[in-house]
Amino acid sequence: MDKKKNFVIIGGGACGPKAAARARRLDANANITMVQDEIYTSYAACGLPYFISGLVKSGNELMVRNAEAFKKISNVDVLIHTRADSIDRSAHKVHITNLTDGQTSTLDYDKLVLATGADPIVPPIKGINLQGIHVLKKIPDAEEIMALMTASRTHRAVIVGAGLIGMEMAESLVTKGFEVTVVEALDRLLAAVVDEEISDLVARHVKSKGVTLKLGQKIVAFEGEGRVQRSITDKESIDADVVIFAIGIRPNSRLAREAGLEVGAFGDIVVDQHLRTSDPDIYAGGDCVANINLITGQKVFVPLGSTANKHGHVIAANMTGGDQIWPGIVSTACVKVFDFNIGRTGLGEKEAVTAGYNVVTGLIPGLDLPEYYPGSKEVIIKLVVDAATHRILGGQGTGPGEVIKRTDVLATAITMGMTVDTLANLDLAYAPPYNSSLDILHHLANLVLNKIAGRIQGIKPKKVKEKIDKKEDFTLLDVRSRGEFQTARIESPQTCLLPQSRLRQEIQTLPKDKEIVVMCHRGSRAYQAACTLKGAGMKDVKFMEGSLTCWCDDVVGKPPL
Amino acid sequence: MDKKKNFVIIGGGACGPKAAARARRLDANANITMVQDEIYTSYAACGLPYFISGLVKSGNELMVRNAEAFKKISNVDVLIHTRADSIDRSAHKVHITNLTDGQTSTLDYDKLVLATGADPIVPPIKGINLQGIHVLKKIPDAEEIMALMTASRTHRAVIVGAGLIGMEMAESLVTKGFEVTVVEALDRLLAAVVDEEISDLVARHVKSKGVTLKLGQKIVAFEGEGRVQRSITDKESIDADVVIFAIGIRPNSRLAREAGLEVGAFGDIVVDQHLRTSDPDIYAGGDCVANINLITGQKVFVPLGSTANKHGHVIAANMTGGDQIWPGIVSTACVKVFDFNIGRTGLGEKEAVTAGYNVVTGLIPGLDLPEYYPGSKEVIIKLVVDAATHRILGGQGTGPGEVIKRTDVLATAITMGMTVDTLANLDLAYAPPYNSSLDILHHLANLVLNKIAGRIQGIKPKKVKEKIDKKEDFTLLDVRSRGEFQTARIESPQTCLLPQSRLRQEIQTLPKDKEIVVMCHRGSRAYQAACTLKGAGMKDVKFMEGSLTCWCDDVVGKPPL
Repeated sequence: MDKKKNFVIIGGGACGPKAAARARRLDANANITMVQDEIYTSYAACGLPYFISGLVKSGNELMVRNAEAFKKISNVDVLIHTRADSIDRSAHKVHITNLTDGQTSTLDYDKLVLATGADPIVPPIKGINLQGIHVLKKIPDAEEIMALMTASRTHRAVIVGAGLIGMEMAESLVTKGFEVTVVEALDRLLAAVVDEEISDLVARHVKSKGVTLKLGQKIVAFEGEGRVQRSITDKESIDADVVIFAIGIRPNSRLAREAGLEVGAFGDIVVDQHLRTSDPDIYAGGDCVANINLITGQKVFVPLGSTANKHGHVIAANMTGGDQIWPGIVSTACVKVFDFNIGRTGLGEKEAVTAGYNVVTGLIPGLDLPEYYPGSKEVIIKLVVDAATHRILGGQGTGPGEVIKRTDVLATAITMGMTVDTLANLDLAYAPPYNSSLDILHHLANLVLNKIAGRIQGIKPKKVKEKIDKKEDFTLLDVRSRGEFQTARIESPQTCLLPQSRLRQEIQTLPKDKEIVVMCHRGSRAYQAACTLKGAGMKDVKFMEGSLTCWCDDVVGKPPL
Repeated sequence: MDKKKNFVIIGGGACGPKAAARARRLDANANITMVQDEIYTSYAACGLPYFISGLVKSGNELMVRNAEAFKKISNVDVLIHTRADSIDRSAHKVHITNLTDGQTSTLDYDKLVLATGADPIVPPIKGINLQGIHVLKKIPDAEEIMALMTASRTHRAVIVGAGLIGMEMAESLVTKGFEVTVVEALDRLLAAVVDEEISDLVARHVKSKGVTLKLGQKIVAFEGEGRVQRSITDKESIDADVVIFAIGIRPNSRLAREAGLEVGAFGDIVVDQHLRTSDPDIYAGGDCVANINLITGQKVFVPLGSTANKHGHVIAANMTGGDQIWPGIVSTACVKVFDFNIGRTGLGEKEAVTAGYNVVTGLIPGLDLPEYYPGSKEVIIKLVVDAATHRILGGQGTGPGEVIKRTDVLATAITMGMTVDTLANLDLAYAPPYNSSLDILHHLANLVLNKIAGRIQGIKPKKVKEKIDKKEDFTLLDVRSRGEFQTARIESPQTCLLPQSRLRQEIQTLPKDKEIVVMCHRGSRAYQAACTLKGAGMKDVKFMEGSLTCWCDDVVGKPPL
């Protein structure tokens, strides 16, 4: 019988515990040791915003498995509150320090796993060390933020960074009664997650919940005596005594770098398709590595607990003598921000253009259930397609309705290289409690195919807004009913109301050669009307995709979302 | 300029209106006529059970577009309450009768569309014409059923047929205060939709809602004076004065058959991939045709409004000179039955075996959200995979949780020929409000891969039940906690409790060479424990898939679902 193997796993977040538990299932005899610098191990860090908001009542609920249970169930030795200091690759040893008593020791390994995660980026901004400014990564961070919130005198908070954690924390703090200002250096929120059309809709929703957005502003300093009082941007000063710093995270690759392992452009520990580093006896997975984007073949840094768990599963197989491949990701992500669900997968429009595709997009709002079925809610989905091959490159969406099911369908479709033609005919589940007979994805696929075939020309709301601002000579033809028009409308010199039901009779009242942009509530009547106008010989007809529902500016009256 | 084309469409349900409206968008000049034998046209027939239950307040809400709107918006002439009597293919004429005044006339066509739908099957059972017995297909059917319900003296109903409509109607009638008995000739409900493991769980749920199931019983007669009073099966007599007859539907292909068009084994109008019949000037779509199952390449009859709409879209393209292909379906279906969501796609286990695959399955219950996130609910999913190629052949599930998202992901995966290896790594959307870091589909994929690799042996609950019934000599090892065991358990001479936390210490108390079936609440601890037992040298270890959650028989105590 072989000598017992020594497996050492550094990191007790998601990838590490998964690798440890599965390695035990695959090798009953090995010595398996997991080293974790925190006191807690194997907990759901992604749930921390909901612990802070009070939705999750206790930190204990986030615990998956503690050190004792790991020993009992999986016979894994977990060294908590223990730091891995360095790796001696030639001797196959890891030097560690017990952070409780300061004792140092070494662990022998046959195979080593680096699951060291990622750390929040904290630049040396003036005043950054003032009390009241905090990052969110671990359970103690959440507990300290909650203490800061309790001690807050102003109940005003600034969140620096409008990414996933920033937006989740905005909701958490508003839930707890705070007046929240989000400061973001880029000109829109969730800019790394969704395209402009989607982030504009989310921004409107977030503002409707009382959040102040300071977009395109950079934090330059924090001020206060002892505790932070003011966040200073390049444009203004914002009073708040709680600041959540969430501009991003960076792979924790110190150990790897110091051990001479290859480190990539994101600061990621470089791994091959077996998640093996440049040392064949060392694996790495979770937030400390980058992943191949399956569409472009390029490396991307998308740190997520879901991917980390899958990494752990693959690493366990490979370090116990198996042969399992980690192919990569399609950059799927999702986030709940107040009542809006937000999902994305594949490439955004700009990413797709940058990658060299001949991009055509479609944007459609719709209900997630039949209109007659109680509880139907709005979703807005955007599709990004390669006009040359019809391949679906990306999809994203938002709204109070079921966005995430569509995101998952698109993630699956994109992974398999599906064309928009196949999407149009895709046999998705239909019954009234779950969907309309045609899903919004079917409508989107048909729209994109009609655009590619030149049957119709779409125009984005933002483009229409630009045309209005430039005082261009065109007709913005609203084909809704008079009642709808009175409830909410885009007021411009170009606006003209002609309800769909009267369009055919009064078509001769419209100019034949002037540019006409047709709009309605969600775009489907506008699409239909645009076809009618083209059929009647109008030369320059476009329909406004998403129409009033996706309108990017103020409306007169009650906005549709 | 070409002569204006004449397009005639017979049928105003789903496929017909879709074909008509799109044909207009593609051809501004054609004469388009739609012939509909009902008074209503283009309505959501799938919503009728919810109209009957009162969830949908008015039949008007089900209307998509009436004849007047069709004329105004799409310039389509809709002849309502008009029957198509016959087709003169050589003269390119359709003979029609106005059912209001009895006048006959003819319509010339260049291209004809048969969207004649399907009719409920009503065999000549004794007493079938008694008042109180009704099928559900059209709006007047629903209105008449509601009148029958109002006039009911016993408030007892029998539903004949435990298929999709039968189960939807069971819920509708219970909602309206009826005592409902479902009579089904087969030995389980939804037998054409889901496998035994799933239908057994649904049956238990339906019974918990007060519905009486009479499975494996055939209706042989109805009795009563004027109005039905008793439904007589081959085993008993059931009192009820409302009977819904829902044993299935059959394509309405009379016109096609009489015109000499090819008709298939299901009574379906035979069409090619362009949805063209054996006459190149006649198309057919919707419930009157069959579809190719994309996995087997065989024709199947799965009539659904979703497919009918897609057919209409494709037919419109082809009859206006385009070239669009209808590839087929993966037999996706879903239905809500009380609080359970039920979805299926691809092949069921028996279908897959019959089709010649070397089938391996996996069955897993789990929560649809992280356990710590409020509102998480149970789902049970089954996966059917080809062991040789690892290709996913089918998937189905039920439970109060989010089953349909998983169904749609699997439908997409199966359409694209995804392997279970790719599913294990699939980049599905993850954030705590939407999912656990690993979706139940990831766990299922890993389970199936582990089974294929021989790392673990699963056993279905029903097989375990059979072993108990046969008094076989094996240990049914329950590894849950004592508290869980006291709450609910399978009581048998083979049952033995040894909580997971004590398993490693007390492993020597278990027999080394006897068959051990490990179980827990959902199966994951049982899986883990089975690995531990195998690692300790036990020879014959299986884990019970789905464990107590999917147990097919009564439990002592409170059942988990």
